[in-house]
Amino acid sequence: MSKPLDITIAGAGLAGSLLSILLARRGHRVTLVEARPDPRARGFIGGRSINLALSTRGIAALERAGLAKRVLEDAVPMPGRMLHEPDGGTVFQPYSKDPTDHLNSVSRGGLNITLLEAADEMENTTLLFDQRAVDVDLETTTLTTESPDGSRHAHRPDLLLGADGAYSAIRDALRTSDRFDYSQSYLEHGYKELHIPATDSGEFAMAPNALHIWPRGRNMMIALPNADRSFTCTIFWPYRGNDSFETIDTPERALAYFQRTYADAVPLMPTLGEDFASNPTSSLVTIRCSPWAKRRTLILGDAAHAIVPFYGQGMNAAFEDCALLDDALVGASSHDDLERAIARFATDRKPDADAIADLALHNFIEMRDHTASTLFLLRKKAEQRLHAWFPRRFTPLYNMVSFTTIPYADAVARARRQAAIIGAACLGLPVVLLVL
Amino acid sequence: MSKPLDITIAGAGLAGSLLSILLARRGHRVTLVEARPDPRARGFIGGRSINLALSTRGIAALERAGLAKRVLEDAVPMPGRMLHEPDGGTVFQPYSKDPTDHLNSVSRGGLNITLLEAADEMENTTLLFDQRAVDVDLETTTLTTESPDGSRHAHRPDLLLGADGAYSAIRDALRTSDRFDYSQSYLEHGYKELHIPATDSGEFAMAPNALHIWPRGRNMMIALPNADRSFTCTIFWPYRGNDSFETIDTPERALAYFQRTYADAVPLMPTLGEDFASNPTSSLVTIRCSPWAKRRTLILGDAAHAIVPFYGQGMNAAFEDCALLDDALVGASSHDDLERAIARFATDRKPDADAIADLALHNFIEMRDHTASTLFLLRKKAEQRLHAWFPRRFTPLYNMVSFTTIPYADAVARARRQAAIIGAACLGLPVVLLVL
Repeated sequence: MSKPLDITIAGAGLAGSLLSILLARRGHRVTLVEARPDPRARGFIGGRSINLALSTRGIAALERAGLAKRVLEDAVPMPGRMLHEPDGGTVFQPYSKDPTDHLNSVSRGGLNITLLEAADEMENTTLLFDQRAVDVDLETTTLTTESPDGSRHAHRPDLLLGADGAYSAIRDALRTSDRFDYSQSYLEHGYKELHIPATDSGEFAMAPNALHIWPRGRNMMIALPNADRSFTCTIFWPYRGNDSFETIDTPERALAYFQRTYADAVPLMPTLGEDFASNPTSSLVTIRCSPWAKRRTLILGDAAHAIVPFYGQGMNAAFEDCALLDDALVGASSHDDLERAIARFATDRKPDADAIADLALHNFIEMRDHTASTLFLLRKKAEQRLHAWFPRRFTPLYNMVSFTTIPYADAVARARRQAAIIGAACLGLPVVLLVL
Repeated sequence: MSKPLDITIAGAGLAGSLLSILLARRGHRVTLVEARPDPRARGFIGGRSINLALSTRGIAALERAGLAKRVLEDAVPMPGRMLHEPDGGTVFQPYSKDPTDHLNSVSRGGLNITLLEAADEMENTTLLFDQRAVDVDLETTTLTTESPDGSRHAHRPDLLLGADGAYSAIRDALRTSDRFDYSQSYLEHGYKELHIPATDSGEFAMAPNALHIWPRGRNMMIALPNADRSFTCTIFWPYRGNDSFETIDTPERALAYFQRTYADAVPLMPTLGEDFASNPTSSLVTIRCSPWAKRRTLILGDAAHAIVPFYGQGMNAAFEDCALLDDALVGASSHDDLERAIARFATDRKPDADAIADLALHNFIEMRDHTASTLFLLRKKAEQRLHAWFPRRFTPLYNMVSFTTIPYADAVARARRQAAIIGAACLGLPVVLLVL
């Protein structure tokens, strides 16, 4: 076991609360500081989406905390995509030839509460809510927080970890320090969440075991099942231009547009007009920065690499960060050790964060446009067939990302090599496949 | 004349003070708000460099303010580069075949004071120093500033212009608003300024009418002449690795390294050791963002597009922004007009800012590596010869950037077409040049 350290984690969202458990299990004294109120007392507030697709990387990290089983009990398995065609027809595409491979639709709020409850059970963990970060001193590793009554507290841990999300206060301290590379880049699309309730007889209104997609080019809708047999739909529309949030700006226009575009879903959405008017339209940002670590402060998860949701990997990548950091800190006891350990973690992990950020951006185009194309379906079938024939030689990129813990950047590199081989095969050199 | 507007400009540096003059000349009521003390009272503080290369774009903007002549009186013309070879030999490269084309070395502090004096002479301009921006409300176009005594003042102009530099407070309000794309990217090199005084007999210690360069790959030095017959040298060195600020970290090591690398300069630098130890090492950032305008707030100059100094265009681009904005505001009287005018200015100007940012980054490689190569010299000669033969058809990119007001992005596009033609010519199709 490492020498016990005082560790302050900013942010008690998904990544912060899981990380607190992993580090407390190592014997460290962990203080988890959150700006928002305790969601266990007042209900879950904020966060970007109602449900999320938990997959292999996230599950592996939850297993370290002994929580995978408990979390998966409340999840709805999604072994494939259900494509909704404009005429109302549906096509089911399994994600994998392996019947055990599936995504898991989980509730963000429920998962966060599960993690906080588990964190609170640890003796060496302190949870502090309603504590807004007001100052970060990177030189002395000091986080000053303020309570709603205006009183301030200075935390001076051995290690300060920023798991405080895409608008991280800890990252802002890094950003305004010298020579910190940083970018925030928004999509031209925003998103809005809508609702498909359970039927009157209490059943799912559509096939439950799938991630539903209405691929319509610029104006995609998706839906994920919830444990209460409802679905949460998300529309991804451009902010401006034709068929955008700017032009479809009333419940009436929304209803008319839905009738034309996602007709089969409309009868399942009794509160569509109200939901459209009252639910917020939110933006989609990609954040990249470097270096994530300075002295004894490190950012991780969305704070270090917020990505768009189209590969379903934001939470999974953040959980994988937690597991990798948990390993990286083993044996670090002096402050110098800690500096070196988090600097190395940051350097090693950055290429993977960049890789999944790029994949997530690219997958938006794939989901909204290509999933509906015959060529895409053929390619997916060919990939899965190659995977079945050569399970060790050929794994489709989607499967490597979603159903393995191969580092993201390695998965991309391997997919490129595979694509080169397929390209060669298509050029009349099928022998290449045979001699591999 | 436009209807007089209340305009608040944040930042009384080079761009802000010139802009205040241009807009006051249009009859607007201008308030110029600066966080630092008045440099006229207490001497110039801050800023990135002691002298700057003023060229055609900057001069054109100064002419609008009636100040070009006054500024150029104190400038030292630099019609070309003086390359210092490792063996102490020198080669002079004129920038242009046109003998009237030259850069002008001007003092940043002196120029700023000239602009502030001219601004102060305008009846409808108010200058406020020691006013730190503490809040910006983009919805109501309100800038709240704080004096050293803690008292606050809310400025509510018709138009709020952020000319407050690379670490702009106005831009920070935009950055934290939704859907603002932003990046800050640092070079691995930093810079440090050093000094070559006038000789004992009061003369320039080197040829005065040139921008001196010691091109040494990763470790370049340059020197620009000052009106007092001194030179300001700038070393551009990597922060880390071999021959970097990290490894050459004492006056003794610096002296030894200078002896090996810039030997001919050492006898001219009597305070080299002290200057090296006491002058700061500063970083080099490129900032890109979009949109520059929201409601009735606009950023410009370094606040919108800070660039590295290697094309000598940072100030010139900022001054050109001022001139273009001055034009863009003509006729705008209502708040709606203003919103549209600054949004259009921002959209039109952004590609030019991106173009000069890229050119400045690229020119670092050219200055430090290529200026010393025979191939570079041949190419420069060929370019200038083509320019002499076909003055309307062929203008080298350097000349378009430094000695014309062709928009930066257009200059780059034109240079690409020219390069294609030269490429074709070199492939044995000289006929292309003849039939143009």
